[in-house]
Amino acid sequence: MIIDAHAHYTSEPKSVPDFRAKQIKAFNDGVPWPTRKDLTISDDEIRAGIDSIQLKYQHERGIDRTIFSPRASAMGHHLTDEKLSLEWTQISNEFVHRIVGLYPNDFIGAAQLPQVVGVRPDNCIRELERCVNEYGFVGCNLNPDPSGGFFNSPPLTDPWWYPIFEKMCELDVPGMIHVSGCCNPSQYTTSSYYINGDTTAFVQLIMADLFSKFPTLKLIMPHGGGAIPYHWGRFRGIAFMNGRPELTEIMGNNIFVDTCVYHQPGIDFLMDIVPVDNILFASELWGAVKGLNPDTGREFDDTKHYVENSPKLTAADRAKIFEGNARKVFPRINKVLATAKA
Amino acid sequence: MIIDAHAHYTSEPKSVPDFRAKQIKAFNDGVPWPTRKDLTISDDEIRAGIDSIQLKYQHERGIDRTIFSPRASAMGHHLTDEKLSLEWTQISNEFVHRIVGLYPNDFIGAAQLPQVVGVRPDNCIRELERCVNEYGFVGCNLNPDPSGGFFNSPPLTDPWWYPIFEKMCELDVPGMIHVSGCCNPSQYTTSSYYINGDTTAFVQLIMADLFSKFPTLKLIMPHGGGAIPYHWGRFRGIAFMNGRPELTEIMGNNIFVDTCVYHQPGIDFLMDIVPVDNILFASELWGAVKGLNPDTGREFDDTKHYVENSPKLTAADRAKIFEGNARKVFPRINKVLATAKA
Repeated sequence: MIIDAHAHYTSEPKSVPDFRAKQIKAFNDGVPWPTRKDLTISDDEIRAGIDSIQLKYQHERGIDRTIFSPRASAMGHHLTDEKLSLEWTQISNEFVHRIVGLYPNDFIGAAQLPQVVGVRPDNCIRELERCVNEYGFVGCNLNPDPSGGFFNSPPLTDPWWYPIFEKMCELDVPGMIHVSGCCNPSQYTTSSYYINGDTTAFVQLIMADLFSKFPTLKLIMPHGGGAIPYHWGRFRGIAFMNGRPELTEIMGNNIFVDTCVYHQPGIDFLMDIVPVDNILFASELWGAVKGLNPDTGREFDDTKHYVENSPKLTAADRAKIFEGNARKVFPRINKVLATAKA
Repeated sequence: MIIDAHAHYTSEPKSVPDFRAKQIKAFNDGVPWPTRKDLTISDDEIRAGIDSIQLKYQHERGIDRTIFSPRASAMGHHLTDEKLSLEWTQISNEFVHRIVGLYPNDFIGAAQLPQVVGVRPDNCIRELERCVNEYGFVGCNLNPDPSGGFFNSPPLTDPWWYPIFEKMCELDVPGMIHVSGCCNPSQYTTSSYYINGDTTAFVQLIMADLFSKFPTLKLIMPHGGGAIPYHWGRFRGIAFMNGRPELTEIMGNNIFVDTCVYHQPGIDFLMDIVPVDNILFASELWGAVKGLNPDTGREFDDTKHYVENSPKLTAADRAKIFEGNARKVFPRINKVLATAKA
């Protein structure tokens, strides 16, 4: 079985971003914003996007299951307040819940959280519980920079984040550390900002100990772990200078990276550097990088092809990356898969 | 000949940072700050640091010349105002000038610029002219984020930066795009912040055209180009999505990366991805990452060893990386080297 650990709902009908724009405009204008009652999307509209885009690629490439969460760039934790962030988050999570209901053998849900810049993420606990207990979601996306590009939250190792980590451990769901859209014009959302977000968060986890307090916490660093593998020597040396252990020891059974690295040499390099036990297959389908690599004639984000062709990997390695590690990092998917129809 | 394109004066006597701390404290207290007259460092004090640390490694490793600039993390463009930034910059550049005078066959100078957060870098032109025309410096460091960690300056492709680029072209000196110390607690100066700075600036140069306006401008992206080589497929695909050409075409004869990547696989990977004509040998000696790699018994920053051992490179490739490209990117070093004593 091949499990893709990182995808967002990016084939939504245009009425969804239009609705969101109206919410934000109303919020900024100080007038009542539209609520979930003002947004009606039929199952057929959902199917039209999923079937023609996301599921089309998923089936063509032979990916069996995708862990599916709301569009990351649209979370917009810097845009509104707690009340509206919660409303938008619940709308977004409900879409994912509906999609999982329509396609139970293709998608497994993961939650957006109603974070707000400057607000301690205690306010996310109830929504995470709701998504896990009522919707059967198996993970969540945690935004390390709810400011949308200014990196002004406490490091992930700060007690500020502990309440949400406690809840994640209690529910046995991992968090993907994923920023949202960028409002800082120096950076571009899906290129420099995403990668900077990954690098920033990963280094926070290297420089101080979080996992002796949360030994079962599992965090996924998307986009191949940002810059960490390429600069492994730099970060390893700086860890030593700060009295910290080997990076592989820090990662242990707590930090995982995905395979959203969009060229064959990058994937081969990732496999050379990061232990196989810490790598999760993922494509971010359908997402950040659209289009064909002119050298290969394949989509840039066809990471399954790269992993299949990475020369160093054994069959056992590939089985871990494609399936075994996902079952370990997202323990709740085992129950979902056991009860799915054949 | 082996030319190291990236090193800072990091073996200064303790009285230098002590003096700088007094300047900043006085500035913040609103009282007159100490000037260059209040800082007296003898040649012997300078030699003590250079001989025992920076030149020791340089000679041990067989590096013939180093392009040497003030300590990057101490530039502190977010800390004071134009007047004090200029005073500190001139003090810092004078140290480099003295060191080049003491060691004319080992070091070649590059300038710090008196940038200030929020101030258009027109104010840097006179100091750059002074350093090039009076001191014989061959390059400069340009800070893309004078805020010290909040990335709130216009992108490098914005006309805001044009006056300093015009002067760099006129003087035929390249700029290394290098951030300074980080005051944003989410990031660590020499790890996540440096790499994020490189990634942010590089993507700015990918996403919009600067070099048709400045065809002779040469910019160096330090620390192996941040995250760009590892995520080459992502950035290449995003460039295409935005109507931009191949990354190699964008880089052309304008964008160069250095070899400050501190492990053998990282250097090998860099050589696989970035054209040899766009790579400059550098170590950042003595600097960000101190200590031995326990696997090899060598310092993490011994990048000369990595380049020598990178299997893909031919002798002609190594000659470009070690010398030829530096002569091309820093045209003024040719004159310096021609007049140096044997």
